[in-house]
Amino acid sequence: MNPIFLTDPVPAPEWSVSEWLNTAEPLRLAALRGKVVVLHAFQMLCPGCVLHGVPQTSRLHQFFDPEDVAVVGIHTVFENHAVMTPDALRVFMHEFRVKFPVGIDRAGHDRIPESMRRYQMRGTPSLLLIDRIGQLRAHKMGQVEDLAVAAAIQQLVDESAENDRS
Amino acid sequence: MNPIFLTDPVPAPEWSVSEWLNTAEPLRLAALRGKVVVLHAFQMLCPGCVLHGVPQTSRLHQFFDPEDVAVVGIHTVFENHAVMTPDALRVFMHEFRVKFPVGIDRAGHDRIPESMRRYQMRGTPSLLLIDRIGQLRAHKMGQVEDLAVAAAIQQLVDESAENDRS
Amino acid sequence: MNPIFLTDPVPAPEWSVSEWLNTAEPLRLAALRGKVVVLHAFQMLCPGCVLHGVPQTSRLHQFFDPEDVAVVGIHTVFENHAVMTPDALRVFMHEFRVKFPVGIDRAGHDRIPESMRRYQMRGTPSLLLIDRIGQLRAHKMGQVEDLAVAAAIQQLVDESAENDRS
Amino acid sequence: MNPIFLTDPVPAPEWSVSEWLNTAEPLRLAALRGKVVVLHAFQMLCPGCVLHGVPQTSRLHQFFDPEDVAVVGIHTVFENHAVMTPDALRVFMHEFRVKFPVGIDRAGHDRIPESMRRYQMRGTPSLLLIDRIGQLRAHKMGQVEDLAVAAAIQQLVDESAENDRS
Repeated sequence: MNPIFLTDPVPAPEWSVSEWLNTAEPLRLAALRGKVVVLHAFQMLCPGCVLHGVPQTSRLHQFFDPEDVAVVGIHTVFENHAVMTPDALRVFMHEFRVKFPVGIDRAGHDRIPESMRRYQMRGTPSLLLIDRIGQLRAHKMGQVEDLAVAAAIQQLVDESAENDRS
Repeated sequence: MNPIFLTDPVPAPEWSVSEWLNTAEPLRLAALRGKVVVLHAFQMLCPGCVLHGVPQTSRLHQFFDPEDVAVVGIHTVFENHAVMTPDALRVFMHEFRVKFPVGIDRAGHDRIPESMRRYQMRGTPSLLLIDRIGQLRAHKMGQVEDLAVAAAIQQLVDESAENDRS
Repeated sequence: MNPIFLTDPVPAPEWSVSEWLNTAEPLRLAALRGKVVVLHAFQMLCPGCVLHGVPQTSRLHQFFDPEDVAVVGIHTVFENHAVMTPDALRVFMHEFRVKFPVGIDRAGHDRIPESMRRYQMRGTPSLLLIDRIGQLRAHKMGQVEDLAVAAAIQQLVDESAENDRS
Repeated sequence: MNPIFLTDPVPAPEWSVSEWLNTAEPLRLAALRGKVVVLHAFQMLCPGCVLHGVPQTSRLHQFFDPEDVAVVGIHTVFENHAVMTPDALRVFMHEFRVKFPVGIDRAGHDRIPESMRRYQMRGTPSLLLIDRIGQLRAHKMGQVEDLAVAAAIQQLVDESAENDRS
């Protein structure tokens, strides 16, 4: 089994986003059922995101067929909220030529934003893979090599939506 | 479709090898039916092989489950035969810590060795993917990125041996 | 002659800085007379700065003896002023572990800040070298390889302060 | 002091070479007096040489002015002599586009070749710097970063041949 896969998949919770960039329409996880979803959680001033995670996500976005794979970023600010604002993110995405859609994680009642809390993310960058039937199949913080990520995504693509892996 | 796949798969010819390294038993393509075969053709003094192809093949060998994927090198010497001898290859493989099995392509009646001729390879490094039913599905010379290679291999793994893709 | 050197050195103008980070005391170019000064102009959301210029400047700061070489950053914001604020810069420097002193270029009467205007910089990243007697000896925009930068700095270090190169 | 410099310089011994490549005339260290000499000892099947040392030496050869700096390779074969022959080296240098002059270290009475023994080298790659008056000033085995090497060479260039550093 691909080492980035979770032993026990769980239903992926819906994300909660206050604003979308790089997409005409808001994206809902529920509406992506039938596709594999690559969810990349990042912060614009996190070195591991800027140097590794965001460029890798751009490569995945460019490589996989959007009919099969939806690549989605989520800006999960859990520190330094005052400077990683939506306006700052817009500049970051323009300057770093980020082309995939990015949702701004909705502020929570503490410093942890809503989607980050729902997914119990521990930090950034985090890479999450959700299969065609909405199960969370991978959840890795930090750097993951292209080879493992690409093989994992392709495997989820190759599972038919009808399959029950339980 | 993965851009490294051939539009028109053809039956992969059996290779022709005069000596095997890193394997107790000679490998025959026919005997690997049922597995995906990654065939990496290289020369030990080809910079693109040493700097890119061989290390990538080592990563593939380490990553994929040998039950599903057989990673095989083939030393296709088509120039400077006098110095890229079996003894020199043994030293190269030891020093560069190459762990995957490598067959020495059998000398042909001209400078092109037998397997290279059968596969109509144009040079080194060449990456070839053969599916579970023995069809040649990819054949690329030069540098191919990990992302595309890993996705292609995984897709072939996910095809059941019974499938007819025609 | 090192290819990054200017054919015609000119006196380096004093910089104009509204706030200093990573230094207890404000730095004045005039007070650094006798040392070689490496001046790295950057913006915190400029990819060439984040990926290349700032890490290189950190390496220079770590390598050269501070008795001989003063490595100084200057945050020359000429676009997107609203999001590249002093507070945002502080977060950037903390997260990216920037240890060299950085001055915030003083706002000008148009979008170009004061020091940037005085030095006629064309963008970021820009690398400037000032010799022991206060002459601007190199001024390069974009990526410069370590080898050329290190040789240039060492050459300026080796010029005695008394020398007249005219 | 540059960390790659030796605390105690010693006179550099003359090398002993059985054959030269990439140079019309044999090179003698004694005849290079007045120049800085960069001596790079390598073996053509040593990964640290192929991946790091030889490319770095090529960059040094391309960067520094040959009036000031003589960049010289020496093929110090101390293992696997049967396959790292002069003919094999010629192919290696052609394929990897090595343009600097390389001397083949003369076979010794044991497996250690003559120059390697005279310089008491411990392995490959080894980088040695010899100053304008023939003193061995640096001797490092393994990987050394461009920044440190370039600064060290430039510093030796800047010492006038007349200087006595004792």
